[in-house]
Amino acid sequence: DSKLKLFTCNASPELAKEIADVIGIPLGDSKVETFSDGEIQVLLNESVRGSDVFVIQSTCAPVNDHLMEVLVMVDALKRASAKTINVVMPYYGYARQDRKARSRDPITAKLVANLIETAGAHRLIAMDLHATQIQGFFDIPVDQLLGVPILGQYFKSKQLDDIVVVSPDHGGVVRARKMADYLAAPLAIIDKRRPEPNVVEVMNIIGEVEGKTAILIDDIIDTAGTIVLAANALKEKGVKDVYACCTHPVLSGPAMQRIDESPLKEVVVTNTIPLEKRSPSSKINVLSVAPLMGEAIIRIHEELSISKLFES
Amino acid sequence: DSKLKLFTCNASPELAKEIADVIGIPLGDSKVETFSDGEIQVLLNESVRGSDVFVIQSTCAPVNDHLMEVLVMVDALKRASAKTINVVMPYYGYARQDRKARSRDPITAKLVANLIETAGAHRLIAMDLHATQIQGFFDIPVDQLLGVPILGQYFKSKQLDDIVVVSPDHGGVVRARKMADYLAAPLAIIDKRRPEPNVVEVMNIIGEVEGKTAILIDDIIDTAGTIVLAANALKEKGVKDVYACCTHPVLSGPAMQRIDESPLKEVVVTNTIPLEKRSPSSKINVLSVAPLMGEAIIRIHEELSISKLFES
Ligand SMILES: Nc1ncnc2c1ncn2[C@@H]1O[C@H](COP(=O)(O)O)[C@@H](O)[C@H]1O
Ligand SMILES: Nc1ncnc2c1ncn2[C@@H]1O[C@H](COP(=O)(O)O)[C@@H](O)[C@H]1O
Repeated sequence: DSKLKLFTCNASPELAKEIADVIGIPLGDSKVETFSDGEIQVLLNESVRGSDVFVIQSTCAPVNDHLMEVLVMVDALKRASAKTINVVMPYYGYARQDRKARSRDPITAKLVANLIETAGAHRLIAMDLHATQIQGFFDIPVDQLLGVPILGQYFKSKQLDDIVVVSPDHGGVVRARKMADYLAAPLAIIDKRRPEPNVVEVMNIIGEVEGKTAILIDDIIDTAGTIVLAANALKEKGVKDVYACCTHPVLSGPAMQRIDESPLKEVVVTNTIPLEKRSPSSKINVLSVAPLMGEAIIRIHEELSISKLFES
Repeated sequence: DSKLKLFTCNASPELAKEIADVIGIPLGDSKVETFSDGEIQVLLNESVRGSDVFVIQSTCAPVNDHLMEVLVMVDALKRASAKTINVVMPYYGYARQDRKARSRDPITAKLVANLIETAGAHRLIAMDLHATQIQGFFDIPVDQLLGVPILGQYFKSKQLDDIVVVSPDHGGVVRARKMADYLAAPLAIIDKRRPEPNVVEVMNIIGEVEGKTAILIDDIIDTAGTIVLAANALKEKGVKDVYACCTHPVLSGPAMQRIDESPLKEVVVTNTIPLEKRSPSSKINVLSVAPLMGEAIIRIHEELSISKLFES
């Protein structure tokens, strides 16, 4: 059997440590530093020859640094004869640039897929890709883990009465449907429409919400504009309490202030992106993806070993 | 004939403008901006269909941002049906990570080559690659332009007496030889040796320098450690004046202060890396590579058109 080794870059060493604890092995001995001019230096201080290596790195902000860190790490692992290089990217940056929304747009999510493959990765493990199509941007296997069970489990344990799960837009309906199933709750959808160009958007709500406890769900909360508008619209329709949840707390720019000033009662997120360096709103509650990711890594490593059995 | 179009990212719009003026065309209408979370957004505001496009971008600090900018730009150009995409990278970042100096090192200069090709570039035009071997990291054509004639021309015009060209280490002898030929001057070499491990380095000088005017030449001046040590050693050997020159003024960390406090009379550099955002030492003199790069772009565009003639 080839050995399982775990390495981390600098996006979230805390999550990497938690995952290592779940698996029950120490993190590999490596460092990702910068030279005086800001160029990345990767130091691999132990052998990886013949190992199944898992590198944990979200491409959250500063996204270009975090992306380059993992690419250089993969390059170093490849040249050090790792048997397989498995990139564990809890948050996949640039996922929203997944299609030409305007003519002459780049498709950066596809570019990033090509860069990861070119560097030498054999597999990608990610959580809640913004679009499932991103799996198809890769020629290597992509495992997508879902946040719904983690977030759903939390809301189950709260034992809230008379829940309705709400998608903040049409793009998120499939995800909200999954959460509604998980909680055995009905579904509602915020239906934004612009009646005429240059006229303010109208927020309709499809589904029964009055008097209920609403749980908004999205994959990413970035500037929190969408989710706060949705919370306001729900309040206006007589919802009792509004909770929000997402897998990836990007929370850039005005997000924290918007959440603080909103009618949102609580915002439940995961640690695919660390919040440490920002001053989070006291309404934010962070759940760990480490047990899920750790289990996935163990299973994939088993699978890699089993397929080796079949090969021989 | 397919049209020549010139675009720039954010590393040095000033140099790009100068190059556009040399060629006599305006810069293409594009913007490279960031979303709220720091992800790069490239906006191409004019058609590039069927054009020979040249994108000007040095991968100087912040190197990962500047690299990603040009990769996303190339992706956008490719998807917008540019005929050829020619990356003009006056300074090629990560060039010093060009070999495994220690076991398990990455070879980031090769990784960067792969990333540029993967994004969709058809050609690279760079100045003074740290190692000529980097050309071989690419499968696309690489044009390397040299700083020696620009720097040499400047020193010629100063009409200094009794010059000696000095290489600050063994790695730079070939470059120093070229400069010595250009100036019809003799060559000397700083010969650093460590007599025993953990004993301080000894600086010998190979060649006659006493009473002469020394011109130190290197490709990159980064923290200025090497060049200032060399200047001190030359002064000790009775050199009259010490000048230094390089193509790429990285000038990170303590560089400016070291130069200011050194016996260096003048440090001549080019604008492959812009100095604007730092407070440069008053000893630094910047020469422009725009005439050279502009001429190279015109010639390459002609060549592209001629080869089209042969194809049909
Ligand atoms: N980092 C980002 N921040 C905000 N908007 C983005 C970002 N990346 C891409 N977009 C835009 O978001 C839109 C896609 O979002 P969505 O409709 O949620 O898939 C596209 O119009 C993109 O131009
Ligand atoms: N950005 C950088 N700053 C300082 N040293 C570097 C940088 N990139 C690579 N190196 C190191 O510089 C050495 C190569 O420099 P050289 O001998 O001049 O080719 C290698 O040992 C590299 O690890």
